[in-house]
Amino acid sequence: MIEVPAREGRGVRVAAGQSFRVIDVDGGQVADTFAFRADDISEYHSAEHTRAYVSRLFPRVGEHFVTNHRRPILRLEEDLTPGIHDMLCAACDPERYTGLGVEGWHASCQENLQRAMADLGHPDVEVPQPINLFMNIPVLADGELGWEPAPTVAGDSVTLRAEIDCLVVVSACPQDIVPINGNHPTPIAIELLDL
Amino acid sequence: MIEVPAREGRGVRVAAGQSFRVIDVDGGQVADTFAFRADDISEYHSAEHTRAYVSRLFPRVGEHFVTNHRRPILRLEEDLTPGIHDMLCAACDPERYTGLGVEGWHASCQENLQRAMADLGHPDVEVPQPINLFMNIPVLADGELGWEPAPTVAGDSVTLRAEIDCLVVVSACPQDIVPINGNHPTPIAIELLDL
Repeated sequence: MIEVPAREGRGVRVAAGQSFRVIDVDGGQVADTFAFRADDISEYHSAEHTRAYVSRLFPRVGEHFVTNHRRPILRLEEDLTPGIHDMLCAACDPERYTGLGVEGWHASCQENLQRAMADLGHPDVEVPQPINLFMNIPVLADGELGWEPAPTVAGDSVTLRAEIDCLVVVSACPQDIVPINGNHPTPIAIELLDL
Repeated sequence: MIEVPAREGRGVRVAAGQSFRVIDVDGGQVADTFAFRADDISEYHSAEHTRAYVSRLFPRVGEHFVTNHRRPILRLEEDLTPGIHDMLCAACDPERYTGLGVEGWHASCQENLQRAMADLGHPDVEVPQPINLFMNIPVLADGELGWEPAPTVAGDSVTLRAEIDCLVVVSACPQDIVPINGNHPTPIAIELLDL
């Protein structure tokens, strides 16, 4: 079990065919999740290609997330949550917090991704749009987006299977101004399952 | 007036403060539109940052499109169309057409972008998610996406204003299998307006 402390990120190598569970330890916490092809990180999960691939805003159980080359990289194996996730919004980054009025440094999913990828040997990385597990961004009738607290409770989880060898990074989103984490960021856990 | 022939793309430099009109010449034609910061093309229009910035699937007239650094790059000045546009789907690319059963080469918005940026002196370019002007991808109640013909008629247009010096590329989408262009790709025009 890999603990992702509140406001931090962690990366892990996952082999083709291996599954992993992303667990919302305390509930109500967004997990920004990224996946890169292990032997060429210029290929990575791409939200805009996945939406076109599944003709949906978010895949259903049994469907795939694909890369910027439209190659399946992750499969949604199991969803033990209320089924609310986001794939519309960029990772939070320093400019996001400046725009929200924060002065000085604030942890962000972008920096968490960059640090985790550096720890895996990749100090230079494109920042893809994440799979925002547990994140509650309803699309209203006129195309407006809501920013609601994550509806998960402690122990809720999503299981994903890697379809190619990949590097997976999960960030326990440090957002504490917009209420997506109930204004109280908490940890996430990654459980690698047996191949 | 810059003609963008059917199935092709064209790039143009636009100065900060200058507006340009993207015109659907014959109607029913999707225009994939990209914008890069002129003096550093690693900064470009980003759909996932724009959605978060305006809290909508697509900006309204008077609102901004922002870059991957959340900096305003284009402003939606005027919309003389039925108001249907897409910012969910990746540019079509060789893998898209292979997946649709095409054998051999097929023109694509990705290659049109790459060629247009090479003509502007940038042979190596990240492929961002485009602003798909005139494209009709309805979001259904359960998150399913439709792929419908563009509802524009001949001469419909959108006017955008550059907020920083930028390189703009417009591709007259060559998609002729999925019916977004009525299975008959036609030209687009770009009209640069006086500063």
